[in-house]
Formats: sequence, structure tokens, C-alpha cells
Amino acid sequence: MATKGVILSGMRPTGRLHLGHHSVLNNWVRLQEEYKCFFMVADWHAITTGWEEAKEVHPNTLEMVADWIATGLDPEKSVIFRQSSILEHAELHLLFSMITPLSWLERVPTYKDQIQKLGELGKDINTYGFLGYPLLQAADILIYKADGVPVGEDQLPHIELTREVARRFNYQFKPVFPEPKGIVNKEVAVLPGIDGAKMSKSYHNYISIGAQVDEIKNNVNKMVTDPARIRKTDPGNPQVCVVHKFHRIYNAGVLEEIETQCKAGAIGCVACKKQLAGSLETQLAPIRERREQALAKKGYIEEILRAGDEKARAVARQTMEEVRAAIFG
Amino acid sequence: MATKGVILSGMRPTGRLHLGHHSVLNNWVRLQEEYKCFFMVADWHAITTGWEEAKEVHPNTLEMVADWIATGLDPEKSVIFRQSSILEHAELHLLFSMITPLSWLERVPTYKDQIQKLGELGKDINTYGFLGYPLLQAADILIYKADGVPVGEDQLPHIELTREVARRFNYQFKPVFPEPKGIVNKEVAVLPGIDGAKMSKSYHNYISIGAQVDEIKNNVNKMVTDPARIRKTDPGNPQVCVVHKFHRIYNAGVLEEIETQCKAGAIGCVACKKQLAGSLETQLAPIRERREQALAKKGYIEEILRAGDEKARAVARQTMEEVRAAIFG
Repeated sequence: MATKGVILSGMRPTGRLHLGHHSVLNNWVRLQEEYKCFFMVADWHAITTGWEEAKEVHPNTLEMVADWIATGLDPEKSVIFRQSSILEHAELHLLFSMITPLSWLERVPTYKDQIQKLGELGKDINTYGFLGYPLLQAADILIYKADGVPVGEDQLPHIELTREVARRFNYQFKPVFPEPKGIVNKEVAVLPGIDGAKMSKSYHNYISIGAQVDEIKNNVNKMVTDPARIRKTDPGNPQVCVVHKFHRIYNAGVLEEIETQCKAGAIGCVACKKQLAGSLETQLAPIRERREQALAKKGYIEEILRAGDEKARAVARQTMEEVRAAIFG
Repeated sequence: MATKGVILSGMRPTGRLHLGHHSVLNNWVRLQEEYKCFFMVADWHAITTGWEEAKEVHPNTLEMVADWIATGLDPEKSVIFRQSSILEHAELHLLFSMITPLSWLERVPTYKDQIQKLGELGKDINTYGFLGYPLLQAADILIYKADGVPVGEDQLPHIELTREVARRFNYQFKPVFPEPKGIVNKEVAVLPGIDGAKMSKSYHNYISIGAQVDEIKNNVNKMVTDPARIRKTDPGNPQVCVVHKFHRIYNAGVLEEIETQCKAGAIGCVACKKQLAGSLETQLAPIRERREQALAKKGYIEEILRAGDEKARAVARQTMEEVRAAIFG
């Protein structure tokens, strides 16, 4: 194990995860077999865009990590930890801030985009912390000397910034950091919500990873199908059907058959949904069960995090000793 | 002791101190009798305006703290510590960054001034860290719940920012922080360098606090006097004489007499300088001696700092527990 290098990835603790996160988690589960992985609860990042959910960070962390474990992250193989437990992240962020031109942060493409988007929602995030959060990410990544960071395409500029910061530090002082690569997994499929929009908690169009049978059934039943198809014998167009997008992932083995039947009007939407709900139930039931077990054992998740924090801290401290020696040495 | 509240103050470790710092230190010595004082080696701040001196931070810290002790700071009464030993400063800085609008930092008057000044010297300090350093100061001050901060007039806007940050935090979460006041001591006299310009290491126009007899004599002899006075019987103008500015502080008891003699041409510049050198020697000799003793005891300064770090850390940790509870609660 752990031969291909070090990986860091993280998620903001927004609570229970949904199927929109499922392929990301499956990717993490694959990665942990080949890399030394650090999976971080990004709880400081959770407050860079607003304080409203700060009080939910602790309970959300437990729910999210339960989903991680249930999906297959293994605390024996990977380091599962909380960002805010490792003060060295804040120290490295501060030290990096002194070699990072403002312009590097101002030109991160997501920066102005997000200020505008959140501004339209009435959220003012024009803070010093929001400008600096890609630099905090750089510290998160580099403090574990990660070689790779699994990301979506939109996060690649953040990885580029991380590489620039590493280069500048290495040049100015001593070569302490590798230049991590963004690992874009094309297989990470984007699932829509049941209404066809982006799956999101705030849109109430999601299915939880640990969903109960009823949640699965009800939500699959509400999925938007080809609106031009009136009777079940009408030929359907899978391209515009949300159910079909779920079949692609959760019924990949029989996808062609389902498509052919739909186009021929040989299977109705009700039956097609039933088939999807059945497959989802088959695949989610063991996750749901592990999730419930994890949460039922009192203090189990906390203990995973405590042990993970300790492992992460040891690595972060080692790096910071090198960093301080390189700067002040 | 420690009845009037808590004070935080600090200096960047630039090495041995000179007489330009003497009145600031004397002020600290007075304050420690009435307040619980935290005196901080601002070693992270030392690198906000450049990395050139980073390698000097450790040796400079020892020299500076030797001067502090020699001048009368008492590690039994006051907490003498290193900023960089208390990672909680970086954590609080990071948390504050998320409630601090960029505009608050951009409008700090010293910000644009210094960027320009240092830019003219060929130093590019347009970094994220330089923009944020008044916020790091706010964290330095508030983490000890300081009520007062001895400052020069030019630093008052930084204290105002600190108060604003404290107010915003207290309002948004819970009232954790006092709103510290800037304590401007009018008695802190500004001494010029021996050439009449600002006393500064980089101008080589200073007298060290722990100066040897020869350094005192040589520098006093080089002091610029009234240029219009050719013969020692000519009447002098004390207003334009550097020696006189030193008499004001180091011969305050006989100042009037010296002034009268000078104006009457009754004392020549050579004799006047000799009188100053004698007074300086009398007043600096015990400081020099304590300084040499402090540096001669192997590990003595390091031990003061280690013990101070520990005391500071205990207070900082207590505050951070309140801060985290207020935010994440």
C-alpha cells in the first residue's frame, strides 16, 4: 500500500452527503488503495463564505464522516482528520501569506465569480479570509507534502496557485515542498438532482447516500422524465430523462437494454423508475447499514477523528519544523 | 500588582536596541508595576516586510531580550514571549480574517504609505500577508484580552482596527473580547540620531542601549551642534543642537543650567559633550552590566523565553477555547 505517493482531499462539513457526492467518495475509496491518503474535514473553509452554518459544523462533521466510513473510507488505511485541529495549517497559511502577491489571489477565477454569485444571494463575502482561502488550501495540501489532489476541473486554478506557492517557497528558502498535481477523474460522473437541476441540499432535490427505502422510492418517483412522453407506449427520449442519468451510474450493466426499451415505448416510466429504485436500494442498503452502525456506536466517529488528528498532526509538525528551519534556520 | 488591567506590547526583533528605544522601554518598565504585561517578540511581524533578515531573527531575539531585561523588564512580573511560539495567534488571525472586510485593511493609513515607501527602496511588499498584518496585530492583542496597548500616534489606526474587529466578533458571536485602548505616552521622547536625523540602525547614527564607554564617547563627540557657533565663546543655540536634545533626557536635572551656559558662551561644545558622555556612561553602565551578565549565563535568555512562552500559551489557549465555543458553540 501507499506506493504511488501522498494525496490530500477534503470536504466542507455540510452534513449528510447525497448521491451527488457518491462518485467522488467512490473515487476516494479507490485512491486509498494506492496512495497514502489524507481526508480532511474542511471546517475552517466551511466558514469562509458565511457564519450562518458555524453552529452546525460539529454535528455536520459527524454526519459527513459517518457517510465517508459507510462508503468505504478506512481509518486504518487513510488519515481522516479535522482541519481545525491542526493549528499548523494556520501557521503555514500565515507564513505563505508573506510570499504570496495579492495579485495571485485576486486573479483566481473563482474569486470574483463567487463574490458576485453570493452577493446576488445577499451574502457579503468580500472579506480578507475569503480572498485568502485558496492560500489556506495551499497550506492544507502542502503541509502533508501531497503529490496529488483529486479535484473537479473548476478547482484546477487553485492547484496551480498551490504549485506557484510551493515553487516560490522552494526557490526563496529551501526545497521543502513537492509541486502537487490536480487529479481530474473523468469517471466522476455528475448526477443531476431529481428535478434535473444541480443536486444540492439547498434545492431539496437530492437523495442521501444513507437514504431509507422510502426516501429512495419517493424521490425516484418524483424524478423528471421526458415531458413529451404522455402514454407509456410513446417512444421516450432518454437524453432528457433524469431517471436515465441515474441508470447510467446505478444500472450501468443493463443501460443499453433500458435505453432500447424506452426508445421503443416498451417500458413505461413507472416500471423504469421501479427498476432504478430497486437498484439504488440494493446498492445503498449496505452503506445505510454501515452508516447506522457507525453512528450507533457512541463516540466511534469522534474516536476516528481523534486518532486521525493525531496522525495528521505528527506529519504537519514534521513539515513545519522543516519550514521554520528553511525560513529562520 | 496587576490591578489596572492587561497590556500587550511588542517589538520586531531587529537586534540590539539603541537609545531611540530607551524611553519606550522605560515606559514598559513603569507599566509592568501597574498592569499585567505581555511583552512580545514580534518575530512573525519581522518577516511581513521582507525575508532578508529572517536568518537574523533568532540571534536578534536574544540580543533584544537581553536589552529588555537589562533595562528593567522583569520576567517574574511580566510575560516575555515569542509570537511564533504561540500558534493560536495564527489561528485567531485566520478566524478574524473571515469577519474582516478587505476595505478595513485597505484603508489603514500606514498601508499604502509603506507600500510606496518600501517600493521606492526597491522592496515589493504587495503581499497578502502585508495587507493582513494589522489583523495579525489585532489577534496578538485580543488573544490576551489586553485592555491597553502602548503605542505611538502613528499606530492608533491599528488599535482602532483592533477595536472594530473585537466589536464585530462580540456582536456576531459572544462578547469574548474587551475593546483595547491605545495608550499614547507623551513622555516618550523622540531622540534624534547623532547626525540629527531619525535614530536608526540603517543610518549608523545610533548609540546602543548597552554601549561601551568608547561607543558612547565617540558618538557623543560626533554629535552635530549649532553650526553657527565657531568659537567656544560664541553664544550657542540649543534648539538646533543634537547634544542638547540628549541633555533633555539624560541630564534633565541640570538642563536649565546647561542651556544658560550655552547661550552665554560660558561652556564650549567639547565640555558640554563631555558632560553628556559622563551622564550617559553613568546611566548606561548598569544596563550594560546587566546585559552582559544576561548574555553570559548560557541559556538564560532562552529559558526566560521558554517560560514566557508557556505562560502566554496558557492564556492564549484559554481565550481560544472561548473563541471556538463562541463560533462553533
